[in-house]
Amino acid sequence: MTLLEDLQQLLGGDRVSENETILEQHSKDESYHTPHIPDIVVYPENTREVSEIMKLAKQYNTVVVPFGFGSSLEGNVIPYDGGIVIDFSLMNKVLEVRENDFLVKVQPGVTRSQLDKELKKYGLFFTVDPGADATLGGMAATNASGTTAVRYGIMRDQVRDLEVVLADGSVIHTGNMAAKSSSGYHLNGLFVGSEGTLGCFTELTLKVIGIPEHIMAGRAEFANVDDAVNAVIAILQAGIPIARVELVDEQSIKQINLFSDTNYNEVPTLFLEFHGNEAGLQQDVEFMKEIVDDLDCQKVEFETDTAARNRLWESRHNAAYAYIHGHPGKKQMVTDVCVPISELAGAIKDAREAVEESGLEGGIVGHVGDGNYHILLMIDVNNPQDIERANKVNERIVGYALERGGTCTGEHGVGIGKQKYQEKEHGDALGVMQRIKEALDPDGILNPGKVIKGDYAKS
Amino acid sequence: MTLLEDLQQLLGGDRVSENETILEQHSKDESYHTPHIPDIVVYPENTREVSEIMKLAKQYNTVVVPFGFGSSLEGNVIPYDGGIVIDFSLMNKVLEVRENDFLVKVQPGVTRSQLDKELKKYGLFFTVDPGADATLGGMAATNASGTTAVRYGIMRDQVRDLEVVLADGSVIHTGNMAAKSSSGYHLNGLFVGSEGTLGCFTELTLKVIGIPEHIMAGRAEFANVDDAVNAVIAILQAGIPIARVELVDEQSIKQINLFSDTNYNEVPTLFLEFHGNEAGLQQDVEFMKEIVDDLDCQKVEFETDTAARNRLWESRHNAAYAYIHGHPGKKQMVTDVCVPISELAGAIKDAREAVEESGLEGGIVGHVGDGNYHILLMIDVNNPQDIERANKVNERIVGYALERGGTCTGEHGVGIGKQKYQEKEHGDALGVMQRIKEALDPDGILNPGKVIKGDYAKS
Ligand SMILES: Cc1cc2nc3c(=O)[nH]c(=O)nc-3n(C[C@H](O)[C@H](O)[C@H](O)COP(=O)(O)OP(=O)(O)OC[C@H]3O[C@@H](n4cnc5c(N)ncnc54)[C@H](O)[C@@H]3O)c2cc1C
Ligand SMILES: Cc1cc2nc3c(=O)[nH]c(=O)nc-3n(C[C@H](O)[C@H](O)[C@H](O)COP(=O)(O)OP(=O)(O)OC[C@H]3O[C@@H](n4cnc5c(N)ncnc54)[C@H](O)[C@@H]3O)c2cc1C
Repeated sequence: MTLLEDLQQLLGGDRVSENETILEQHSKDESYHTPHIPDIVVYPENTREVSEIMKLAKQYNTVVVPFGFGSSLEGNVIPYDGGIVIDFSLMNKVLEVRENDFLVKVQPGVTRSQLDKELKKYGLFFTVDPGADATLGGMAATNASGTTAVRYGIMRDQVRDLEVVLADGSVIHTGNMAAKSSSGYHLNGLFVGSEGTLGCFTELTLKVIGIPEHIMAGRAEFANVDDAVNAVIAILQAGIPIARVELVDEQSIKQINLFSDTNYNEVPTLFLEFHGNEAGLQQDVEFMKEIVDDLDCQKVEFETDTAARNRLWESRHNAAYAYIHGHPGKKQMVTDVCVPISELAGAIKDAREAVEESGLEGGIVGHVGDGNYHILLMIDVNNPQDIERANKVNERIVGYALERGGTCTGEHGVGIGKQKYQEKEHGDALGVMQRIKEALDPDGILNPGKVIKGDYAKS
Repeated sequence: MTLLEDLQQLLGGDRVSENETILEQHSKDESYHTPHIPDIVVYPENTREVSEIMKLAKQYNTVVVPFGFGSSLEGNVIPYDGGIVIDFSLMNKVLEVRENDFLVKVQPGVTRSQLDKELKKYGLFFTVDPGADATLGGMAATNASGTTAVRYGIMRDQVRDLEVVLADGSVIHTGNMAAKSSSGYHLNGLFVGSEGTLGCFTELTLKVIGIPEHIMAGRAEFANVDDAVNAVIAILQAGIPIARVELVDEQSIKQINLFSDTNYNEVPTLFLEFHGNEAGLQQDVEFMKEIVDDLDCQKVEFETDTAARNRLWESRHNAAYAYIHGHPGKKQMVTDVCVPISELAGAIKDAREAVEESGLEGGIVGHVGDGNYHILLMIDVNNPQDIERANKVNERIVGYALERGGTCTGEHGVGIGKQKYQEKEHGDALGVMQRIKEALDPDGILNPGKVIKGDYAKS
């Protein structure tokens, strides 16, 4: 038997593919990184099948890359060594909503929009909202976060349990349904953010919350980015429990207006949201207005109806797509550093200079309440100069952040794009990560060459 | 040279001890577990010394147990294999308060009361508050939590970075100062809760928050425990962002009144606290009152001044000591399960039955907002029957929790006391934990026999 035949016997012919279009679809993510096709794409429907696939991979000495929605930005999902791509799109069921426990159990292929639609029936919502309609499996694997992390935390904070198929095909659970535990090593935290290099997630138990009693969303406009950033810092210092605070610079507002049919003033803007009870919210918002007034805010505008509020956040979520749409033929490179909040103003000032000096088109958006911001740079991947310029910007931004206690990636993960910064960021801790990888995937079967450089693999 | 001589040369004579009283002080924790003396106790003053101690331990083929305040409850700190105990009490400096970043850097021997005193100067506070005046190093090592976890999370949620001396004496940092990161494997989470079995923490960077603008604390009294538990569940369901909600049963109120000179009505009571802005808080409290009124609450009383509020929480924090004081010559066994909130009412009902059937004296207190509660049982450790009865209670309680998606330890850790439940709780995931331990401490030098059974050790 060949690997292909064995997989076909396991899954049936229509869930194993060598079709060129299918291979091509699984050769890339949404970034500028060079694609590479896998040998085979498979579509399991349950945990047992994933386990058998892993065993076959070991038997045939080939590698495996888990694939969610393919929206990652650092080459995390690109199968540079070929092998089997496991596409989780058929494992897309919301298995259980435990309303009273504020928990939901999902299969890994469920997307965030699908989950939110289901949760709405219960008056619940899932807080993590990356700009793409990613899968929960992919989001857990990259430790994604989004606009609400400043209030509700990141993907890792939401994961209570993962069912994981390990490299040898064995199946474990990393947690339980209790709100907290001090039992054994914290495997939840270790597997979240492991980018498919330690195991395949086949089921996730996630924390959800009630839809807030009251929500107020708005925009605050500033004459320059510095003022906007200083306003963010002041709001956080004041202890206002802001639910979302996003910076969108002038260039990005322009792209948004073109793409989303909005007509926001084309100036540096904070997109804001507050959650709470009615009385508390009013007080928070008044206090916030006083603070930004003192900091030369030019205009604060709150959306009065739900439709306008949804439009506001949709336009923010689509910022990256707006750039792509506005620059046909070009690809996007996105930086992703996160710095201590006291370093944010300096970091963003340096970032603006870096973009200007590069001569590339681009702008800055970001989850600035966490100290996390992105430069979106549009590049022609066939033009080596563009790539060199973009790399230079990235290196400068990362260097700035690492020298000030920050991280090279706040939410997109390492993939291949952030590997060159790992040693500078982690020092000897990288050795510990390598030993963990070796201990859990001694043959280097799982998403090889990602997160950690490949020299650990025995094969 | 002998190990003792080498240690004396490294640390000087007065920071290396074989004195019997000192050894005896480091032979136990605050639980009923059987003490065992170490061979030597050392008091390092900095990271380099800790690193050298680890290297000597390896060279002399002996084991090392890190020691904070010794307040743990599952034998976590007892040196059953003798060897070196590293007492961190001289590494007790608050190194840096990064006010604007809401971060603090401390040495591991800083106690929580010491930290809070220092932070008060800046209008800041550290949220995690176990009942004992534990060290931050010990709290990180057990993943401690306390009364405020329902709002602000557990110890693991507060740790941004640890400086760790590994088994081979090398020094790593597990994180950084950014609010979030997707860079590499999540070592912060792995080391927090590792109970000294993976490394010695020599510096911690922790999240702090501003002292809330307004605080309201009070007590709600009920005719029976069931009503009290149902009130907790209803408050959580209503989405009220309660900052603290502690159950103290009738028996425990009695002990508290005796020990703390309070005169609370001796009925099942919830100790409550709310944080927020003034307007929001009033609305939360009114809403809470309506909810508990509907659930047969007999009396709600809010403390009006800071002194009364402090007395309330001090009396709650001293609940365990109250029992010990009230039962001279006896030791305390504390259960520590945590269950999904929908299972809490049933779990506490079963717990009450278990205590009654045991014939032992004791009561129930707990961080019920997290589904975490403790049975405090007073036992005569020289009476095998008492121990057997207490073990029976513990086994029943843990079994009940594990069958319902809970955990055997919500906050005290595994130590030796919760080892027998690890296989039932974690299944094959235990193998993953074992491989991690092997990878990071191949000679089994660090706190052997704790968390994970000892059979991994090569020595
Ligand atoms: C326009 C745009 C906006 C974005 N905005 C954000 C943002 O705000 N915040 C943010 O964090 N990210 C953002 N991203 C990046 C991306 O959406 C996230 O990284 C997301 O988590 C990827 O999910 P996915 O389902 O697309 O995973 P994929 O891209 O398919 O895979 C990502 C990684 O997860 C692994 N993986 C996938 N499924 C599994 C599984 N079941 N088990 C184990 N490993 C698995 C893969 O091997 C890969 O390493 C954005 C991307 C785009 C294109
Ligand atoms: C009355 C009372 C009430 C309590 N209430 C609570 C509560 O509400 N919540 C709660 O979580 N716990 C509670 N506890 C348990 C205890 O206080 C916690 O487990 C605490 O975290 C232990 O801290 P410690 O400094 O005493 O550590 P120790 O007991 O000295 O050590 C605990 C563990 O940490 C390891 N360790 C210590 N220092 C280091 C270091 N620097 N590096 C690496 N490992 C280290 C030790 O080896 C050991 O495994 C209570 C205990 C008592 C006696």
